[in-house]
Amino acid sequence: MISESAILNCFQHLVDLEKDDLVIVGSGDDAAVIKSQGKDLVHSIDISKVNSHFPQDSKPQDIAYRSIAVALSDLAAMGACPAFISIGLTSNITDLKWYMQFTKGVEKILNEYQLKLVGGDITNGEISVCVNVFGYAYENNILRSNAKVGDLIYITGPLGEGRRGLEDWKNNQQTKYIKKFFNPKVDFNKSEYISKYANSCIDISDGLIKDLTRICKSSEVGAEIIYENIPITNDINDLSYGDDYKLCYTCPPGLKDNEYISEDFCIGEIKSDRKIIIKKDNSPVNFKKHGWDSFE
Amino acid sequence: MISESAILNCFQHLVDLEKDDLVIVGSGDDAAVIKSQGKDLVHSIDISKVNSHFPQDSKPQDIAYRSIAVALSDLAAMGACPAFISIGLTSNITDLKWYMQFTKGVEKILNEYQLKLVGGDITNGEISVCVNVFGYAYENNILRSNAKVGDLIYITGPLGEGRRGLEDWKNNQQTKYIKKFFNPKVDFNKSEYISKYANSCIDISDGLIKDLTRICKSSEVGAEIIYENIPITNDINDLSYGDDYKLCYTCPPGLKDNEYISEDFCIGEIKSDRKIIIKKDNSPVNFKKHGWDSFE
Repeated sequence: MISESAILNCFQHLVDLEKDDLVIVGSGDDAAVIKSQGKDLVHSIDISKVNSHFPQDSKPQDIAYRSIAVALSDLAAMGACPAFISIGLTSNITDLKWYMQFTKGVEKILNEYQLKLVGGDITNGEISVCVNVFGYAYENNILRSNAKVGDLIYITGPLGEGRRGLEDWKNNQQTKYIKKFFNPKVDFNKSEYISKYANSCIDISDGLIKDLTRICKSSEVGAEIIYENIPITNDINDLSYGDDYKLCYTCPPGLKDNEYISEDFCIGEIKSDRKIIIKKDNSPVNFKKHGWDSFE
Repeated sequence: MISESAILNCFQHLVDLEKDDLVIVGSGDDAAVIKSQGKDLVHSIDISKVNSHFPQDSKPQDIAYRSIAVALSDLAAMGACPAFISIGLTSNITDLKWYMQFTKGVEKILNEYQLKLVGGDITNGEISVCVNVFGYAYENNILRSNAKVGDLIYITGPLGEGRRGLEDWKNNQQTKYIKKFFNPKVDFNKSEYISKYANSCIDISDGLIKDLTRICKSSEVGAEIIYENIPITNDINDLSYGDDYKLCYTCPPGLKDNEYISEDFCIGEIKSDRKIIIKKDNSPVNFKKHGWDSFE
């Protein structure tokens, strides 16, 4: 028979941490104790739920990897270097193998980003992964609320790759996009450079339009974006689909030749008029669906 | 139609924080930023799930209050003063009133313990509340792993009150126990005093026997407890039922007359022989069910 302690045993090797400069008390007590770094703590929480954020028959290692990656994306959007995570796992799977594979995904991403797993909880129910991420600012935290009129708007990669990956996976097609959906990469090097130049930043997890709207609302500005300048993978709906864990940031013009910024895609400009205009062939496009909402 | 943003609006007044000594960036960005307190951070995560940790038709304010209280209990068990929390809420309720009532429960407990809500996430699904709690040690963190042979074993209150409360509630009986189940209190004053004297501590959330076993396993010791000394509410099954958010701690003998310790119940002694013996009428009791497990 399966039990909480049998499941927790699967995770034991991940939390048997040597005492070090970060973790004073890891797993095995009522709470974790993390050594003060003397720096402000950046924290975000992200829930990934079966059939909502990933398909029911996703590989357990992919569920783990993806859930953690999308949570990390919020730290990148704040200009913060990730340091440790904790996981609240809900699952109704009764086969211990599933949990062992799940921990493989956790281990993979912990190693990739040099993170510590400091704690967690497990309960019985429909599969859901609540991931807490913690880090420290590289330089300055980049807020949503500081976009300035005249700022250029950049995105750090093409839209719609995750969307295509999920479709290809459902259609049993082996393409490069599948990894983009299940194992999205978070570019913390980019985040570090952006934190030096950008006035504002957000991760495009709920769709470009919805997330750019958040920057505009917080900053009390508007935006004009040029459809032709946006690198899309599928069609215009890539602008609102979500699942792109790229960053959207704004920075003053005149930095275009900077070697890091020049890699990114300049898609428009921040305007004083508080609305978002998408121009295609020089004319505004009417756009209904704005972005991802798990309740809609 | 309900939407994530409509739900998040219900929480807005709780996270519209003035900038202060703790919270630099609260809600409304990709992540929260918490000012360094120069102290080690104590963190725990706790999931409360409908039909597992609370009944389906619980009042939303009670779901919120209880889920946060049981998470805070882990900080008390570590000898840590709570400072801030974040919440990952999963819910399939489509009536905004439910969320407004839920926030009342959140607000109540935030005020009671002087906590800040620094962030959260919301997604659609069976009701589940993933609560992250954060605090800083009062004095020393009290670990599970430091019980010493000869320590006396104390609990800070009677067992079985939560169990009785849930039964009374199901039977539509109005009793004082119902609040013990839905609105358990966490005694941080007690935690602070215990942190000065105790060698080890745990919260009895999964049942006294299971949780005392954890102390013994971590500390590589055993325990002998005297049934007659345990304040129970119902019957012997109170020892394994759980839902008692009291603390179980061990400390050297000779402190009995200390005014804080003398309020607590001395139920036994730590022994070198690595097993748990419950004595009733001076004879060992056979005890099958050891404690709460959401998978069993």
